[in-house]
Amino acid sequence: MGNQPTHCSIESTLTAIGDRWTLLILRDLFRGVRRFEQLRRDLGIAKNILSDRLQKLAEANIILSRPYQSNPVRNEYYLTDKGKDLSPSLIALMHWGDRWYAGGSPPTILTHATCDTPLTQITHCVECSIEVKPEEISSRPGKRHMHFKSPVGNQ
Amino acid sequence: MGNQPTHCSIESTLTAIGDRWTLLILRDLFRGVRRFEQLRRDLGIAKNILSDRLQKLAEANIILSRPYQSNPVRNEYYLTDKGKDLSPSLIALMHWGDRWYAGGSPPTILTHATCDTPLTQITHCVECSIEVKPEEISSRPGKRHMHFKSPVGNQ
Repeated sequence: MGNQPTHCSIESTLTAIGDRWTLLILRDLFRGVRRFEQLRRDLGIAKNILSDRLQKLAEANIILSRPYQSNPVRNEYYLTDKGKDLSPSLIALMHWGDRWYAGGSPPTILTHATCDTPLTQITHCVECSIEVKPEEISSRPGKRHMHFKSPVGNQ
Repeated sequence: MGNQPTHCSIESTLTAIGDRWTLLILRDLFRGVRRFEQLRRDLGIAKNILSDRLQKLAEANIILSRPYQSNPVRNEYYLTDKGKDLSPSLIALMHWGDRWYAGGSPPTILTHATCDTPLTQITHCVECSIEVKPEEISSRPGKRHMHFKSPVGNQ
C-alpha cells in the first residue's frame, strides 16, 4: 500500500498495523521494551511471528532497528516519528478499555509528565472551542475523493 | 474477558475489537451500514466470518441487532453506547492514516456538524490547559495495579 492514497484511511491504517500482535508489539515499544527476546517473552509470541511483524513494521517505516551487539548482530527496535504518531491511537484504545473493561480501576494512568495530571483525549472543534460528541460529527469527502462516504461520521 | 480488570486496557480492547474485520465492520456501522448483505458486499467478507464477528460484537454489547423483517427474520445492526464510545479510537486510527497514507489528500474529512470545521483530536492536560506531546507523557499504575508498567507512556 505504501503511501498511495486509498478510499479509506482507517483501512490504510489497519493494513499497516491492524493486527493484534502488531498493536501489542507497538504498545511494548512505547513502554520501552526494545529487544527481540524481551518482546518475545513479554508477549508470549512465537519467534517467527514476532520476526515477521517486526520486519513489516520496519518496511512500513514505523520502527527502525539499531544494533546493540555486533557478534552476533543483535538489534534494538525503536519507534520512528511515524510510529510515535500512533500514540493518540493507542491512548484512545487504552482509554476505551479503561472505561469498559477495567472494572472502574484502570491498570495504568497516563499523565502529563510535568504535573502528574491524568491525560484527557478529546475530539474538539477549534472554531467553536468545544468538545464534539460522536453524534455531532459529520463528514465530507476530501477533494480527490468526492465519491466516498464517511467512515465514522453521520451516525 | 467480560468486564474483569486485566493488566492492560489496550489488551482488553484488542481482545474485544483487535481484529481487522471487526474494526472494518465497526467503521461501516459508524457509516450507517446496517444490514448483513450490505456489510458483506461492502467489505467483501465471507458470510461465516461476518456472522462470527457480528455475534462476538453482540456478545460484547458493542452492537445490538433489531429485526427489520419477520419472515424470514432479518436484522439490522446498531452500535450500543459502548460501541459509539469507540468513535475516538476510530478517529485516531483514521487521522493517522490521513497523515501517513493519504498522500496529502485525506479521503474523508470529519467535521463539526454545526459549523463544518474539520475535527481536531488532541491529548491534553486539563490542569495546564495545554496539548501534551507523546514525549511529555508519563504514567503510573492504577490503585489496584501497582506492579504494572506503562503501556504507552515513558517513551
